[in-house]
Amino acid sequence: MRTHLCGNINESHDGQTVSLCGWVTRARDLGGLIFIGLRDHAGVLQVVVEPDNEIAFPVAEKLRNEYCIRVSGKVRLRPESQWNPDMKTGKVELLADTVELLNASAPLPLLMTDEDGEEVRLKYRYLDLRRERMQRNLRLRARLTGAIRRYLEGHGFVDTETPILTKATPEGARDYLVPSRVHPGSFFALPQSPQIFKQLLMMSGLDRYYQIARCFRDEDLRADRQPEFTQLDLEMSFVEESDVQAIAEGMVRTVFREVLDVELPGPFPRMSWHEAMRRFGSDKPDLRIPLELVTICDQVRHVEFQVFSGPANDPGSRVAALRAPGGANLSRKQIDEYAALTAKYGAKGLAWMKVNDRSAGVEGVQSPIAKFLDEAAITGILEATDAETGDLLFFGAGPKATVAAFMGALRLAVGRDFDLVEAGWRPLWVVDFPMFEFDAEDDRYYALHHPFTAPATPDAEALRADPANAMSRGYDLVLNGSEIGGGSIRIHDPSLQQAVFDLLGIDEEEAGKRFGFLLEALRYGCPPHGGIAFGIDRIAALMAGEDSIREVIAFPKTASAICPLTSAPAPVDAAQLDELGIAVPEKASAAE
Amino acid sequence: MRTHLCGNINESHDGQTVSLCGWVTRARDLGGLIFIGLRDHAGVLQVVVEPDNEIAFPVAEKLRNEYCIRVSGKVRLRPESQWNPDMKTGKVELLADTVELLNASAPLPLLMTDEDGEEVRLKYRYLDLRRERMQRNLRLRARLTGAIRRYLEGHGFVDTETPILTKATPEGARDYLVPSRVHPGSFFALPQSPQIFKQLLMMSGLDRYYQIARCFRDEDLRADRQPEFTQLDLEMSFVEESDVQAIAEGMVRTVFREVLDVELPGPFPRMSWHEAMRRFGSDKPDLRIPLELVTICDQVRHVEFQVFSGPANDPGSRVAALRAPGGANLSRKQIDEYAALTAKYGAKGLAWMKVNDRSAGVEGVQSPIAKFLDEAAITGILEATDAETGDLLFFGAGPKATVAAFMGALRLAVGRDFDLVEAGWRPLWVVDFPMFEFDAEDDRYYALHHPFTAPATPDAEALRADPANAMSRGYDLVLNGSEIGGGSIRIHDPSLQQAVFDLLGIDEEEAGKRFGFLLEALRYGCPPHGGIAFGIDRIAALMAGEDSIREVIAFPKTASAICPLTSAPAPVDAAQLDELGIAVPEKASAAE
Repeated sequence: MRTHLCGNINESHDGQTVSLCGWVTRARDLGGLIFIGLRDHAGVLQVVVEPDNEIAFPVAEKLRNEYCIRVSGKVRLRPESQWNPDMKTGKVELLADTVELLNASAPLPLLMTDEDGEEVRLKYRYLDLRRERMQRNLRLRARLTGAIRRYLEGHGFVDTETPILTKATPEGARDYLVPSRVHPGSFFALPQSPQIFKQLLMMSGLDRYYQIARCFRDEDLRADRQPEFTQLDLEMSFVEESDVQAIAEGMVRTVFREVLDVELPGPFPRMSWHEAMRRFGSDKPDLRIPLELVTICDQVRHVEFQVFSGPANDPGSRVAALRAPGGANLSRKQIDEYAALTAKYGAKGLAWMKVNDRSAGVEGVQSPIAKFLDEAAITGILEATDAETGDLLFFGAGPKATVAAFMGALRLAVGRDFDLVEAGWRPLWVVDFPMFEFDAEDDRYYALHHPFTAPATPDAEALRADPANAMSRGYDLVLNGSEIGGGSIRIHDPSLQQAVFDLLGIDEEEAGKRFGFLLEALRYGCPPHGGIAFGIDRIAALMAGEDSIREVIAFPKTASAICPLTSAPAPVDAAQLDELGIAVPEKASAAE
Repeated sequence: MRTHLCGNINESHDGQTVSLCGWVTRARDLGGLIFIGLRDHAGVLQVVVEPDNEIAFPVAEKLRNEYCIRVSGKVRLRPESQWNPDMKTGKVELLADTVELLNASAPLPLLMTDEDGEEVRLKYRYLDLRRERMQRNLRLRARLTGAIRRYLEGHGFVDTETPILTKATPEGARDYLVPSRVHPGSFFALPQSPQIFKQLLMMSGLDRYYQIARCFRDEDLRADRQPEFTQLDLEMSFVEESDVQAIAEGMVRTVFREVLDVELPGPFPRMSWHEAMRRFGSDKPDLRIPLELVTICDQVRHVEFQVFSGPANDPGSRVAALRAPGGANLSRKQIDEYAALTAKYGAKGLAWMKVNDRSAGVEGVQSPIAKFLDEAAITGILEATDAETGDLLFFGAGPKATVAAFMGALRLAVGRDFDLVEAGWRPLWVVDFPMFEFDAEDDRYYALHHPFTAPATPDAEALRADPANAMSRGYDLVLNGSEIGGGSIRIHDPSLQQAVFDLLGIDEEEAGKRFGFLLEALRYGCPPHGGIAFGIDRIAALMAGEDSIREVIAFPKTASAICPLTSAPAPVDAAQLDELGIAVPEKASAAE
């Protein structure tokens, strides 16, 4: 139906007769001539229809935005005065011989610009996606997955599909369930990840597995999550941490080179989880922000101010300072806003100190808590933080995890607000994770990665003896403050696996019910293995420069997990439920 | 952990020290030496452990089948008398320095041969998949999808993911439903295909889309179906049938070349649906079988035998003959078995005629119905079927569709039983499908492809006037008797789409409820578009030479739609159901 793409026409086509298909971006009558913007995925070309063209002109007169048309005619150079440097095709235009209406468009229900709200954008997603930005995002995402596949297949990884209709997984509470028509009263679960299946594939001798897999999580959508999301999943047999990391790092490096023409700095630096938490208050530090949390326990250990000296003398707690360069000019209101932010992350208060004149020492600082500190403390703090005249210091004190949470969030906010975020890409391996996280409220341990992650010690008894200090063989890949990948060496010994289950409060009976087949599989010569998974949506958003993963998903759900386009989810017929052996009790129906 | 793969060791490694990992295929003590078969995915290598090796020998003595081990040592040539031509590595062996036990194996619950039954194979799939045949199948499948992706991406197709949590589709009765926790009482549906979304992507201006997509169908598993299956889905804008077919044919040809090193005959022949049904009794004829159904209406129109003359004189019916070459020596029992087969496909009886002596004319035939036929009929039949001495003729009479069904099945059975299936690959485009199929029982039309397939006429009124004779713009790609792909040019005009819905008994209200968003989308300048979908499981099975798609799926379900490995589907806690706003009524629970 066409000979070329609109956006590819240029001076080299001058004088050629071409046929093009696309959508009208605008149609204007200027001095008797009709000028049409004709768009396809490659770009926009100006089409001119002359009034004496008795075939084309009557059609062209009726065109409105987003009409779908086919145009044939001759490419010609525009007069230099009419060159449009903002258009790739700005030096040429098409003089139409024929204009054929392929499909009309009703008046548009949205602007098709960044001004449109999310609800209308998703309801008319097929119009929203026609925009150049969205086309670019979808194509970038496809180039990303294509580059990943080429790299991994070049390294011997076998693309293998694992089931989507499967059994409930460890975090079963967030499983989507699927009633079975053939077995009424029984349910499949949609996978939160292919974790168990990829481990089974290692037990199957596949050696190197990868899959770009859809995963599902039925939970309140906080932050930027989707009910279904896409994960690059890979697993390798007979490997150690460094083998998996080398493949992952090589892949990320290659993908950035191929897709963005960006050379990532390398080799990627490594940092222990403890160091990341201490210096950046985060297990996914954004290294583009040149700010660090500074521990000032030594400096305030001796003061009478209990808010500081208490945590400073408690090994599980900490006093930390964050320097906001040039922040001394912040208003009280601005400081209060930072305090409100940290309160959300668990801070009981946010102490601060303005450094109005560094050369004046203790006399040069202004702070509500200055009166509680002696000269040694203040001088020590100024030195430890490398504070300069004009800076503001924030202080956080309390349990280490809490301080990390709110001071880490504060660091990000200050970094952004003070325009300190450096350009470029800052990858980081975070390693040496604790095996478990103790939840005081639930009085139990949780796995920091997942229950199949190997502990640093292969000795089940040693692990049971001191779970609090056990380290894992997990690793995360962080890029510009986002965790883009996470993985580990897995447990391949059934007794070690049961020890971990025990410590997580999953006794043998429960383990048998939930993972019996995995424990059974471990008994038949399971090879040592490990792997990693990457969040494709997040990587695509980072590469596209988009804040939300919704901008790199063709048909995403809203934050309340609905699809405004298809109106899913929706109630279904009673007959259909009956066949599935389920019912919707009154209260749920009534709530609809 | 290793320097090489077991199966890759050959004479060129003679004298090298290598480390290998893998599984013990067998361990035998022969004359004091221990011989170990060590397997990884690349193959098996013989490892020798000498009794004076005090480190390795005690470990090697304890090895049993499927123990996972690591071996280091020196590669050496075997004495020529010990060469094993059945092994890729048969000229070499590894003299072990160290043998390290990575993981022991319990006694195996299956043979790990073709002798194992399906239930045990699927329950211990991770052991079943260690077999060379299964490794080959999984790797072939990955090469297949890799080749498809490379071809399509090279032709400008954009790999785009469409939702798996979506709205019920046209064939909603077979949808898997997914209750929503966030919206209790509402349900998502798993897609039977990405059909509507790929059309929406064309409306989005994506131009060329592809996806290797998981699809779901909740139905009784007849034949060789799976609850979840994998489809290569592609769609193109501004195209006609020949454009889609050219891409599809180029892709299939390239994939066969790359994966199997096979050059498919080309260009693929084309056959109308009517011709395929007439000559082969099937819309997916297996052209490797050199047998055809021969219409003998003219030959029997005049006979008094109503079973023949009735259908012969009815335009909706037919009398057809199938020649079984050399079938005259079939026993009565064998003939009865064919009759039983055709009865399953709707035959009321299967008449037959043995050609004992072709030169004797009417005198040379033997048939229970010979007495009902006159000489002209018999002679005519013998001529029309090119019957020769020793042949057997089968006859089918009745409504055309019924005759096609049972005579088509008979043709396949005779072809197989008489060993007539020719080697090689016989692709075929089946085209010119009827738009609708009338179901007398339900007194309504069904779509032969799906409701979005464009009719040959773009005129909605012409279509409404004569739906029985309307042809569609659908096409199927058939290979060796399997439909491997099916597609069509789609409707891009909302009034034509509504006309098709009307003819299918979907009135405007119903259409609005089910496809309102699609009809709405058609209003905004939808481009002409079309596409095709391929069954990846089936193509992989064909290429692997496997009869069942279960052999090319890592973790398939059984024919009764369960997974013996994970025991899915399974009942779930009442609390979990409660959260989803659903309940399992007593009767279903009791049935469990």
